[in-house]
Amino acid sequence: MLESFKNVKKQSPLVHCMTNYVTVNDCANMILAVGGSPIMADEETEVQEIVSICGSLVLNIGTLQQRTIRSMKIAGEKARELELPIVLDPVGAGASTLRTTTTKDLMESLPISVIRGNISEIKAAASGFGATKGVDANENDIVTKDNVLETVAFAKQLSKETKAVIAISGAIDIVADETNACVIKNGVATLSKITGSGCMLTALIGAFCAANKTQVRNAVSTAVVLMGLAGEIAEQKRIEQNAGTASFRTFLMDAVSNMTIETLERGKKIEWF
Amino acid sequence: MLESFKNVKKQSPLVHCMTNYVTVNDCANMILAVGGSPIMADEETEVQEIVSICGSLVLNIGTLQQRTIRSMKIAGEKARELELPIVLDPVGAGASTLRTTTTKDLMESLPISVIRGNISEIKAAASGFGATKGVDANENDIVTKDNVLETVAFAKQLSKETKAVIAISGAIDIVADETNACVIKNGVATLSKITGSGCMLTALIGAFCAANKTQVRNAVSTAVVLMGLAGEIAEQKRIEQNAGTASFRTFLMDAVSNMTIETLERGKKIEWF
Amino acid sequence: MLESFKNVKKQSPLVHCMTNYVTVNDCANMILAVGGSPIMADEETEVQEIVSICGSLVLNIGTLQQRTIRSMKIAGEKARELELPIVLDPVGAGASTLRTTTTKDLMESLPISVIRGNISEIKAAASGFGATKGVDANENDIVTKDNVLETVAFAKQLSKETKAVIAISGAIDIVADETNACVIKNGVATLSKITGSGCMLTALIGAFCAANKTQVRNAVSTAVVLMGLAGEIAEQKRIEQNAGTASFRTFLMDAVSNMTIETLERGKKIEWF
Repeated sequence: MLESFKNVKKQSPLVHCMTNYVTVNDCANMILAVGGSPIMADEETEVQEIVSICGSLVLNIGTLQQRTIRSMKIAGEKARELELPIVLDPVGAGASTLRTTTTKDLMESLPISVIRGNISEIKAAASGFGATKGVDANENDIVTKDNVLETVAFAKQLSKETKAVIAISGAIDIVADETNACVIKNGVATLSKITGSGCMLTALIGAFCAANKTQVRNAVSTAVVLMGLAGEIAEQKRIEQNAGTASFRTFLMDAVSNMTIETLERGKKIEWF
Repeated sequence: MLESFKNVKKQSPLVHCMTNYVTVNDCANMILAVGGSPIMADEETEVQEIVSICGSLVLNIGTLQQRTIRSMKIAGEKARELELPIVLDPVGAGASTLRTTTTKDLMESLPISVIRGNISEIKAAASGFGATKGVDANENDIVTKDNVLETVAFAKQLSKETKAVIAISGAIDIVADETNACVIKNGVATLSKITGSGCMLTALIGAFCAANKTQVRNAVSTAVVLMGLAGEIAEQKRIEQNAGTASFRTFLMDAVSNMTIETLERGKKIEWF
Repeated sequence: MLESFKNVKKQSPLVHCMTNYVTVNDCANMILAVGGSPIMADEETEVQEIVSICGSLVLNIGTLQQRTIRSMKIAGEKARELELPIVLDPVGAGASTLRTTTTKDLMESLPISVIRGNISEIKAAASGFGATKGVDANENDIVTKDNVLETVAFAKQLSKETKAVIAISGAIDIVADETNACVIKNGVATLSKITGSGCMLTALIGAFCAANKTQVRNAVSTAVVLMGLAGEIAEQKRIEQNAGTASFRTFLMDAVSNMTIETLERGKKIEWF
């Protein structure tokens, strides 16, 4: 855990983000805050070159266009060739056919290293894979103490089928590969009161994977702890100052930019299964 | 007034925003701050599905493209079918033929529920409708004590012709339907020193209309009061801290996220005509 | 110097920005913070009209698309016709063929008034022009005490060949025309820890050029001093509050919006060559 954080600081990895125009600025600032360097590019004639100078590729489907879907595939093929981690954020999968089918298409055609989403998005992404048999993305699927073991099993199974590390965000976070999973209880509810907290986490995961290519699961779980812990620090400051959600967002990025190994180690709430 | 604010908090409505890429993040955060949930999507193959899960549709023409104009119309037709409120922000109408004609085209082809803009934009939107006869959008049209009654009459007439609630933003705000109008004196000049204060208000109106479909005029005037009052709270804090416009923006969103019915009721400066 | 700042405040110039979707909001807020007024538009059917009501045109290639390249050329031709300053920010020139060739294409086909970038971007932009003979954009080209005179000479030569004022950003900033150059030592390292500090400076330069059309070099150097000095003020506040990079960004814009002639005059660290 400490190692993966140190590697980000040491390597200052370049991360190629193909992401939505809603939270793109936050994603760029988060990657910079953790010590990485973001590059955004989605024009099909340049994405191969941009991928080639980066350490990882982030695909976020928040505001898909036909144009950017094509570019994502081209960039993804280059990442495959260069053996770079690809991190997929299936924003809103399940909310439209375009998002669900694009998610599956990307999962089937590219060697995705990490899929991060909320439980509904991950279930939508998983439908059509064996793991979701009998699981209905439309039911109230919030991960709780009662169903956490079941969700861990689902995540492991999905990881087995997709070969990707699965990160499920929520009040309780789960990170799983085929054989191991952890449950992370860092984080606060206010994270869901600002736009892009999921996208920002995915961007952070991109930076962590770029700097830790052979330790992807550890990289992902460290990023998840970092984001949750930064949320806790930000929330405390927000409450002290009687401030609102915009200040929380500022404090969240501040906390990521000021995070130390000691704070991370002391604050992590992680259990392995 | 209180009722419409309570309804937003209670229902946490989904708002489909088709908006510009300049202020889109602020719009999303504002909708979240007031208790709603934003969804941004502008790809024509998915907008119908996205509208279908939402409570209202916001069309903001700030950075129009041919592609997004098509998508707006498709989304608008679905909103008509589902009888969802459509809120139009004719950003920069009058500044280019594309913006003026697109505004009119949307007004003529879709059942717009609310049109919100500054006085110049509203006049540009109205040109071609009877209400603007003899009114030149190029003159200095700032609403003042002296011409407020005239502008109220113009707004009522435009509402009669368009069947939309008309919201005119400025130092003095006006909200009117065919038979009733109110003048709102909340707000501060610093709101015009940050980008997107108009867009954010339109997004808030989207959330209020989604949660108050049968009380659109009240929903709009409450949103206008909320934004203006949040501006006053933010400005006070900015001055106390000797801060600048970026802090003002943060405090503005903070104030929206922390707004209570009591503060709203106590702070409103609204007169009915 | 004082004059060019006063002119921005007095004229409140409109600036047409064709820029990337990553930092566009920051660019708009910066232009407002300094007293200008931003307009963003990139649809080819309206850019000529939008240019026509503005005082300058900013072309930023941060997230190029084929569509926006076409629009930039159309807007640029109108700016040429109206003799408006065109400010070019070759973001990432050198990182992809698309960016490098588009930069050169814009430089060759349009009467660019100012080119602002970091040293690598400026060298990539310059390749193919005589000035870069023997200069390899891939080497570690950070401007230091030791090579500053050499870089000044390069900038003057590039200005001679392009007829544009050249602004090179870094720990040491250089602004040069054909015959004169200045070195500016305002600024802090934290500026490179937020996204868009370069884009924001380019946007400010757009506002300064619009209000000072006959004094472009002075306008550019004043904008560079302003941005660097605002960074110093922001950094001091960030350290006092033990805050992070997101607070720094807020304080940076605050400092621009609160800047006075006296502060600017007292704080400038500028040497002429």
